[in-house]
Amino acid sequence: MEAWKNYQSQNKERFLEELLGLLRIPSVSARSEHKPDMIRCAEEVKNYLLKAGLDKAALFDTPGHPVVYGEKIIDPAKPTVLVYGHYDVQPPDPLELWHSGPFEPVIKDGKIFARGSADDKGQFFMHVKALETMVQTNTLPVNIKFIIEGEEEIGSKNLENFLEAHKAMLQADVVLISDTSMLSMENPSIDTGVRGLTYIEVEVTGANRDLHSGVYGGAVANPITILAQIIASLHDENNHVTIPGFYDDVVEATLEERAAMAKAPYDDAAYKADLGVDALWGEKGYTTNERTGIRPTLEINGIWGGYTGEGAKTVLPSKAFAKISCRLVPNQKSPKMEKMLIDHIVSITPPSVQIKATAHHGGDPYLTPIDSIEYKAAAKAIETSFGKAPIPVRGGGSIPITALFESVLHCKTVFLGFGLDSDNLHSPNEKFDLFNFYKGIETIPYFHQYYAEMRGEVGR
Amino acid sequence: MEAWKNYQSQNKERFLEELLGLLRIPSVSARSEHKPDMIRCAEEVKNYLLKAGLDKAALFDTPGHPVVYGEKIIDPAKPTVLVYGHYDVQPPDPLELWHSGPFEPVIKDGKIFARGSADDKGQFFMHVKALETMVQTNTLPVNIKFIIEGEEEIGSKNLENFLEAHKAMLQADVVLISDTSMLSMENPSIDTGVRGLTYIEVEVTGANRDLHSGVYGGAVANPITILAQIIASLHDENNHVTIPGFYDDVVEATLEERAAMAKAPYDDAAYKADLGVDALWGEKGYTTNERTGIRPTLEINGIWGGYTGEGAKTVLPSKAFAKISCRLVPNQKSPKMEKMLIDHIVSITPPSVQIKATAHHGGDPYLTPIDSIEYKAAAKAIETSFGKAPIPVRGGGSIPITALFESVLHCKTVFLGFGLDSDNLHSPNEKFDLFNFYKGIETIPYFHQYYAEMRGEVGR
Repeated sequence: MEAWKNYQSQNKERFLEELLGLLRIPSVSARSEHKPDMIRCAEEVKNYLLKAGLDKAALFDTPGHPVVYGEKIIDPAKPTVLVYGHYDVQPPDPLELWHSGPFEPVIKDGKIFARGSADDKGQFFMHVKALETMVQTNTLPVNIKFIIEGEEEIGSKNLENFLEAHKAMLQADVVLISDTSMLSMENPSIDTGVRGLTYIEVEVTGANRDLHSGVYGGAVANPITILAQIIASLHDENNHVTIPGFYDDVVEATLEERAAMAKAPYDDAAYKADLGVDALWGEKGYTTNERTGIRPTLEINGIWGGYTGEGAKTVLPSKAFAKISCRLVPNQKSPKMEKMLIDHIVSITPPSVQIKATAHHGGDPYLTPIDSIEYKAAAKAIETSFGKAPIPVRGGGSIPITALFESVLHCKTVFLGFGLDSDNLHSPNEKFDLFNFYKGIETIPYFHQYYAEMRGEVGR
Repeated sequence: MEAWKNYQSQNKERFLEELLGLLRIPSVSARSEHKPDMIRCAEEVKNYLLKAGLDKAALFDTPGHPVVYGEKIIDPAKPTVLVYGHYDVQPPDPLELWHSGPFEPVIKDGKIFARGSADDKGQFFMHVKALETMVQTNTLPVNIKFIIEGEEEIGSKNLENFLEAHKAMLQADVVLISDTSMLSMENPSIDTGVRGLTYIEVEVTGANRDLHSGVYGGAVANPITILAQIIASLHDENNHVTIPGFYDDVVEATLEERAAMAKAPYDDAAYKADLGVDALWGEKGYTTNERTGIRPTLEINGIWGGYTGEGAKTVLPSKAFAKISCRLVPNQKSPKMEKMLIDHIVSITPPSVQIKATAHHGGDPYLTPIDSIEYKAAAKAIETSFGKAPIPVRGGGSIPITALFESVLHCKTVFLGFGLDSDNLHSPNEKFDLFNFYKGIETIPYFHQYYAEMRGEVGR
């Protein structure tokens, strides 16, 4: 499609400039002080969607941050693609580890450094620019709808109600999401699934006040020690999770599936070198790709208690806290696993302390069948633009809303991600390669073309 | 001594006003931003010492905070008492738990609420006012020296050099310290020993950057999990410390000593109620008083790592930290125990992470023999002012410099503390009872009188 390529190459610089503008807005959904930035960002997204050629677009209020929705219906008889993305970003902490400001995007070595560059502003914006390309070259082959939400990083807590309330408006044949990674640009891949998530916070309380560790040390439970004992007990010596029933609902991968996964390029030495570790860690009996793809995990995302400042303070603290999350795989269900996790932790807490466990957001795991039209259209699009068929892989992250799209809209999701695992998602110095950004804009129109064609053939 | 009582009762209000002035100075030795406050506080202490009647007093610079030293020599033939105290205080965090400003002293229910009220400004100031009383009533029976340092809360790291450099100036027969507690005003007691201290900080590093817990979770060691496993392994199921050799140098108390300790008033239900806990915690086979007095302990004073803010962040952090300290008992030596603790923690760290362990300050445990003149003089002073003989007890806290006084100045120390365990030392809402403050000022001159008399008898 010469016309697409010409249009994109002529507007390349502007596409990037527009993205940098979006990245400058600190749309951190988890922090209430960024509420005005969230609204400003949503407005910008709406304006870009309209400029790109949607017939209409608007902000929809929720009890939390607004959802941006827009659509262009070219022919009700044609298939409809619903593009999902999110304009909110993770908090940028720890700030001191960033080489440049998280909301002051910098281009260096062919990469865009900024919070949200890959997750997910840079990725959903590829769809906006792909739409613009198709509209400007009169080649849009499907009806297209965009739903860009502002609460993905805090659990999409208002999205289910929004989907339920606007079922008719959102009706589509497939959901298309770019919020995942490829193995590499040399080894393009498609995520065929994402893990689910359960996230809780625990507060362990010993004495009713901070104590002097000399006067009371040895006689009163130290909530940090008890919390450490609880955490330590959650994995056995083979790094299996010890919670009774934790693996009950896991659909074990077949030997064939595991053999197929083992074909994905993976270099143990390079993986360790990139992370700067001497040895990896994980569940015995599984490879690294299996540990991050087809196995559920339990991680401590944060811990704090007592004196954490400069120097020494001999305190025996009253409280200690931890944030604990589990990645889930089919057929584990988030509500069940959340209850299992909380019940277990409460049950192993000794009587010398009190414990309070509360749930943050969660989501169920999801799988896209590789024999579906949507997967095949995505695979063909990648093969066309990369010159190489993609490898199907199971992603380790969570996009809890995919399960919602299936249950509420009865739509399958295809993950057309252009990020890399090295993009520092949720970390300092998040980046998105310019090559990937442009490659995404180039690939997406092929998806729509092939999807329309394949659906047409089925329809015939 | 009618003259003492009259003088004190006439000057009561002023004594308190002067102390409140000292408490308003935020002399936090651990925080570099309080350097000017430290100097201001030292100057004030020097001025009060001169006003109270010392012949001379001055600030002595150290590489850290200055030492205030002063003296009054009435007769070289008479015994010399060296009063030790410290004008520095613990950091006031967590600030939000204070009912009034830590450096805005408030009198409520007969108690002075302020950081440093009991530890140790309120307590060393009793000696300043006792000195003033004796000078004004012409009854000072001994030579008196004051050494009030500014680094007790950060390990007195420059005190040894100071003692070595000024041995002749500091020469004394006994060291007198009010920096400990009594069981209660109804059950006066004297600490016959203090525990030693070893304090380290550990930094556990997994990957070279914070990671997305979905993309990498399950495949890379989480430093929080590993740190929790290390901490959990430091106590066994009976809450004994598991470090090999940890108890080797402990002088086990005899059954007689333990029987004597068991006579100290202790009410399990009241102890638990005061702390707000349902169950106590501690080393199996020992009572609460034994656990805090004659047994060494290991406590986690602080822990931090990963995301500790509002909401949920799915990070797999690069680093986790903990502050860990041990209280030591005779004959454990701080340098040996420090090395044992660090070596053990390093030895049990798995290859999937790196660990860095660094030492903060430490100090050796100390015992005052109860058949010594200094103990007997202190006991008689208390019996005179309280109408009841004191109970000898072993204190749980640490005053590492007592071992130094013994090794450098060859002086025994007597602990004449007037605080209470409920004073919230090192915690929010530190307080010192007005009754105790005045009772201390009343008791101290008796110590000097009886000490001079008993020494005189020995000398004869």
